[in-house]
Parts: sequence; C-alpha cells; structure tokens
Amino acid sequence: MVAHRRIELARDLVKRLLRIGATANLLNLLQKQHPADLATIFSELPEKEREAAFSLLAEQNGRLAMEAISELGPEVGTLLLSTRTAEEIARLAQEIPSDDAAALINSLPEELSIAVLDLMRPKESGVVEHLLEYDDQTAGRIMNPNVFALSEDLTVGEAITELQGARDVEMVFYLYVVDGRRHLVGVTSLRRLLLVSPETPLKRIMTTDVISAQAETDQEEVAQEVASYNLLALPVVDKENKLVGVITVDDVIDVIKDEATEDIYRLAGVVGDERSFTPPLESLRKRLPWLGVNLVTAFFAAVVVAFFEGTIERVTALAVFMPVVAGMGGNAGTQTLTVIVRGIALGELSWGNSRKALFKEFAVGIGNGLVLGLIAAVVVWGMRGNLAIGLLLGAAMIVNMFVAATAGTLIPLGLRAANVDPALASSVFITTMTDVFGFLSFLGLATLFLGYL
Amino acid sequence: MVAHRRIELARDLVKRLLRIGATANLLNLLQKQHPADLATIFSELPEKEREAAFSLLAEQNGRLAMEAISELGPEVGTLLLSTRTAEEIARLAQEIPSDDAAALINSLPEELSIAVLDLMRPKESGVVEHLLEYDDQTAGRIMNPNVFALSEDLTVGEAITELQGARDVEMVFYLYVVDGRRHLVGVTSLRRLLLVSPETPLKRIMTTDVISAQAETDQEEVAQEVASYNLLALPVVDKENKLVGVITVDDVIDVIKDEATEDIYRLAGVVGDERSFTPPLESLRKRLPWLGVNLVTAFFAAVVVAFFEGTIERVTALAVFMPVVAGMGGNAGTQTLTVIVRGIALGELSWGNSRKALFKEFAVGIGNGLVLGLIAAVVVWGMRGNLAIGLLLGAAMIVNMFVAATAGTLIPLGLRAANVDPALASSVFITTMTDVFGFLSFLGLATLFLGYL
Repeated sequence: MVAHRRIELARDLVKRLLRIGATANLLNLLQKQHPADLATIFSELPEKEREAAFSLLAEQNGRLAMEAISELGPEVGTLLLSTRTAEEIARLAQEIPSDDAAALINSLPEELSIAVLDLMRPKESGVVEHLLEYDDQTAGRIMNPNVFALSEDLTVGEAITELQGARDVEMVFYLYVVDGRRHLVGVTSLRRLLLVSPETPLKRIMTTDVISAQAETDQEEVAQEVASYNLLALPVVDKENKLVGVITVDDVIDVIKDEATEDIYRLAGVVGDERSFTPPLESLRKRLPWLGVNLVTAFFAAVVVAFFEGTIERVTALAVFMPVVAGMGGNAGTQTLTVIVRGIALGELSWGNSRKALFKEFAVGIGNGLVLGLIAAVVVWGMRGNLAIGLLLGAAMIVNMFVAATAGTLIPLGLRAANVDPALASSVFITTMTDVFGFLSFLGLATLFLGYL
Repeated sequence: MVAHRRIELARDLVKRLLRIGATANLLNLLQKQHPADLATIFSELPEKEREAAFSLLAEQNGRLAMEAISELGPEVGTLLLSTRTAEEIARLAQEIPSDDAAALINSLPEELSIAVLDLMRPKESGVVEHLLEYDDQTAGRIMNPNVFALSEDLTVGEAITELQGARDVEMVFYLYVVDGRRHLVGVTSLRRLLLVSPETPLKRIMTTDVISAQAETDQEEVAQEVASYNLLALPVVDKENKLVGVITVDDVIDVIKDEATEDIYRLAGVVGDERSFTPPLESLRKRLPWLGVNLVTAFFAAVVVAFFEGTIERVTALAVFMPVVAGMGGNAGTQTLTVIVRGIALGELSWGNSRKALFKEFAVGIGNGLVLGLIAAVVVWGMRGNLAIGLLLGAAMIVNMFVAATAGTLIPLGLRAANVDPALASSVFITTMTDVFGFLSFLGLATLFLGYL
C-alpha cells in the first residue's frame, strides 16, 4: 500500500535525523505528518527514539503531538505521557478536545491524573471532570461535549451567519436545533440550508424525529444505532432531553473495533483490555484466572478417565486414541460456538429464531460425525489392525460431535437469554463438555464391549 | 433499549395484521419503518410471514423494500429475492443505488443474475456490470459510482447552484473537485463554501492533497485508511486518477464488521461467509475440510501417545492426566494466539517489534506454567497420594506452556511475514503443537523416571 510505504520512509528518516541530531529538520518532518501517520511512526519507533521524537514535537507543537497520542489510544498514549511532569501533561491535555483529554487522563495513574486536573485551566478541567462522571463505556464518556447547536427561532440566513462564526467545531454535517432551554427539538443539514431562501424559519426545514442517545446508554448500543441507521453522528441528551454532546462516526468505528476485540478475546478466555505489549506481570494476572478455571475443568475430564482406569489397564490402545475424540469434539464445538456467538453479536440470532439454528447445528454435527467417524475408524483399523477399536472411536466421535453442536449452540443462547455476554461461553467450557462426553462415550463404550477388543 | 422494544412491537403487529388479513393497515405500518428496522423485522419473522410482508411491500413501495433488503446484507437478501421472477428482481434492483444492486445481483444464482441484468434498463445494467468487473472485496466493488463532483473552473456561487440542482446524491459533506477530464484535483467542504463570498474561485478554497483509493485497492486497506484518518468518505479513482466513485463511512463500517467476523471465524477454523442460518449441507461442506485437517493433526498426537504405550501399560494413571497437560497447553496457546493475531489486525504489532512480544509471551508462559503446574502437582498428590506423578504433570505443564507461548507468537507472526493472513494460524495448529509437546514431555519424563512412579 502506498500510504504504508510513505509512513515507513518517514519513520526511517526520523531515526536518521535523530541519530545525526538534525533537530530542525526532524521537527519540520514531524510537523508535516498527519496525526494518524505520526501515531503509526511513534508506535513503530524503538522506545528511546519515540521518547525523543515525541518530546521535541510536544515542546514545539503540543496540539499535533497530542492528536497523535489520541490516535494511539489511551493505553499506548499514556505510556508516552507517564514520564512527563504533571505540569506538562496539563498543558498538553488542553490542546485536544475534552473527550480525548478525558480518555487520556482517565488512564493515567490516579495520583497523576488528580495532579493534572488541578493544574489545568478550571474551565477545561471542569469539562473533563464532568465527562469522567459518566460510567466507562457509556455514550457520555465517548461523546464530544462541544456540540454546535442552533436556536429554533433562527431563520436560515441567521443560522448560516452563526455557522460562519463557529469555532472549534470540527465536523458540521448535521445541524442540531434546540429550544431556549437547550432541549433537542430537531435536526437539519447544511445542504438543506442551501436549498431554501435565507428568510425561511429554521423550524420549517428541520426534522423533528431526531434519533438520539441518552448519556447513560451503553456504547455498544450507540454503535449499533449509528451503524444500522447509517448515521454520521448521534446527538447525546440527558434525561430531560437537553443536548449535552455528540458522538461522531469515527468514535463509533473505534467502539466497533473494541467490541470485536472483546468478543474475540472472550472466546479465547482473554480479558478485554490486554494488548500485545501489556507488561508480562499484568498479562499473567489477567490470564491466570481463566487458566485456573480451565485447570478445574481439565480435572473433571481426568476424573472421567480415572473412572475407566480398569478398562485402560486392559486395553492401553484406548489411551492412544483418547486425544482424537477429545480434540475433534473440541474443534467442532468451537466452530459451532463461534458461528452462534458472532450471529448473536451481529444481531442475526435471537432466542426467538434459535430453534432453527439448533436443528441446523444438530444436522451439521451428526453429518461431521458420520463422515469423520468413518474415516477415523478406517484409519485406526489400518494402523492397529483392530476394527473394534476403530468402530468404537467412530461411534464416540459421532456422539461427541452431537454434544459439541448442542453445547456450542445452547450455552451462548442460554447466556444471552440470561442477559450475560454470550462470548463468555468461552471455548474453555465447550471443550470441557466435549472432553467429558468424549471420554465418557469412548471409554464407556469400550467398557461395554470390552470382550470384543 | 428503546429502539429494540419499538421494533419488537412493530414485528408483533405485522404478524397480527397478516393473520387477520388487514393489508392496508399492514402496508401503512411497513411504510412507516426505517429501512434498517424493516430489515430487523424481516429477519425475525418466520419464513412464510416474511415472504408475505415483503411481497406486499415490494409491490407497493419497491424502493423501501429493496433498501431493507440491502440492509439485510446480500446473503439473507438474496434468499428473499430468489423466489421472485427475473422481471420483478430487475424492476426492484433499479430502485436502489447501483453498488447495492451489484452486491445483490452478484449473490444471485448465475443464471438468474444474467437474466436480471438482461431485463434491466441498459443504462443501469451497464453501471452494475461495470461494477461487477472489479474483483470482490476491492474498493471498486463497494464504491458508489454516482459521485457528485464540481468542476475546478467554478466559483463558489456557481458551485452552490450546482449543489442545489443535484439529485440522487445522498450524502454531500466532502465536495470533490475535478478538471475537464474528470481527474480528481481537489476537495473542499460545504462549510468552507459558506465561509467565503460567492465570487471566490473554487480552486482557492480547495485542498489539493486529497486522500483517495485506487479502484483495485483491497477493501480492508480502504477501511483502515478511512478509520485512521477519521474520514467520512473516500474518493475512488482509476489508474489515471479519474474520479470513478466514492466509498462512504457506512460502507466502511460494514467492511470492518465483516473483517472482524472473518478473523474470529478463521481463529476457530470456520470459513468466512458462513452464518447462523446457512443451510446445513452448505455448512457441512464448509466445516468438514478444517475438521479433516484437525483429524490428521489429532492422529499426530495419537502417534506420540502410541510411542509411549509401554509406559502407559505400566502406569495407567498417566492416561488419566494426559487430558490435563493437553487441555491447559491448548488454552494457554489460544490465549497467546488471540492476543497476537488481534494485535496484528489492529496494526499494533509487526515483525519489527515482535521480539518484545515474544519475550513477553515467554515470561507469561513460564509464569503461568509455574503457578498452575505447582497447583496441579499438589492436586494430583492429594488425589492419588503419588507425589512423583504430580511433579511430572507440573513439569510437563511448564514445558507445554512455554511451547504454547512460542507457537502462539511465532506462527502468526511468521505467516504475516510471508504475507498470509495470520488468523489462518487457527487454534487447530496451536492445539496440535501443544498436544504433541504436552504428551511428549509428560510421557517422555514418565518414561525417564519410570522407576519412581
């Protein structure tokens, strides 16, 4: 990709200019970059060089430096900021929109964040503190409180004059209309302003049926609303329907990415806010609980096997094929689970139409079991010359694929019905089910037909 | 959520009106819905009722019916269309933007799609056929070819007049400027038009440094570009830099969702275009190949176990704890794999900074192994009164967690370096590695220390 190549070149040039100490040239190069490209460059530079380049830019062009940091996301951004003094962070935080400042300050260590808020201009720290009062992952937390609004009493001509004077309003495509007490009463667009004469009252060209979100609404619902109605922005109102902020589609894209990450992670038993470069000790603390749960469930499977120890003692070949039954069931179950969890997340699947999905998964499970069980039986027959063990393995695989289909469908749908995130039905639980039922059917059948083995 | 409740009510009302045959009321209700809400209602209705409601709406308000179908996505939408005649589909396809029509026609059975194209008005089928010439998943395929552009010779006043006359241009926020041969030469915004006097030449208020995409660019790159530069739309140009279309941010959101689904699916060995309601036979055909691969890898593990059959014959208790070593390794490996694959997808991780990630995963793997291995050892000691087997299990778990960390990091990074989608390093391969090395270390150590068991 062309953009990628360009960023690579810039990154290498930054390194070179740092090495030879060409500060003026370096500053010039950095200032020419788009904040998003700067963010990529910073994230790809080794730590020392990143620190040096950022310091230089932060001193000369705080706004651009902070815009790059905002693009990096609060986790990585905070890392770069945490070595600076509270005074400097306070100065820099004032350079960016208050929603971005709030996200950054929120991810600083608590003492530092309090110090930073104390050092900011009262007006700006007030806005940030107000935003931080909203719960994490709500509309209020991700909205931009600097929303441009027009009074409902204006004419189109007056509205255009107001627009011409507006400052610090990045994106104006929807124009929200409010009454004297800032209640949201309508919406119109720049384009519509252009289509009528300046004397037209704003009221006459506005839509009164405005799609909006409450400040307490979960960010995932906001994202779904913006995505399904193809909106570019969503106004945020308080309980009295007063306009308090706006969420733009670029924030929604970040939410959609984060929620997808959360789903992918939960399916694998990873806690949502871990990243590739989360410090090892923190990662350990986040992953251990899930692996602990897995240890308990793994011992369940062990207990099932222990129950059939006598059978294994007589036919050790059973131990050889245990991993095949368990592994195949686990993977088939994970396939089903993934399709179902994603179907729920995309809104295609609900409790209402779940019977159809369940029957489909039954059919697929039995079909997979028949085909793969037969192949496995033949392979075992060929490997060991023992048809009986092959048939046992095949039969156990059919049973286990059916279990996999049932567990992979019902567990996430059940969690959903109980208002729990279905992705929490992580593969850990499914593989426990398939381990337990796989060993139970394989070793159970072997015990029943022990005379033939 | 309020929106959700409203849709549920509407859906139940649709059912009731269908039952009592109140066609006029039903039509009235359907026509009041937003296309996105209609899509939800259609997807939640039982098949017969969906068919009936859609037929009614398609006859009376083809445009709205088709907008709802576009929202449903081509897979589900095609299902609804496929029972109609080619004449009717051709009539309906002309009601929606040609990019949506192209997506729908593309997912129809081939014979039907040819018949439909033949029956459409030549001008419109021409546009659709032209779009279908671009490869699937490229910018050209998802762009809207009806892009509004202004000539560079206009004044601002003339531009506003052109805008007032423009039709069928849904979203105008960026205004693209072209030269006499339709080369893209600049971009400006509605807002900027309002800030200057009508006599100002357009050239003077346009930005000439336009971010655009080539029609052949992969849609994932387009999505990343729109997301990282916070764009609302991206102009698409051909090889000569002529403006051929525009991709709006709502299309990009669909791409981001689809790509996330693809990543989630690949990690679990599911093929990208399967959905909860894909017919069973088709699902079977899609899932079997992966499970077939898994069957081969599962037999690898079986061969490793078979190698130690003599040891298991003497100490059957080993068979009991085999699933613990394998299961824990598999889950730890999946955790690592997931963090790494997602890190690559989000652009945080590249081959350049991968050493740091690898060392981190080593540390986490060994840490997890030490903690969980120790616990497992104690549990086994308690369960069987056999400290030696406990220590073996613990040691094997430590080795296997290290293997899990290495495989989970290096396989996706290696695939990425080889320009293969890292998500293809599905958990199947990782669990094979951890099964094989888990059994190898557990049973291998047991064989070495057989005298102590």
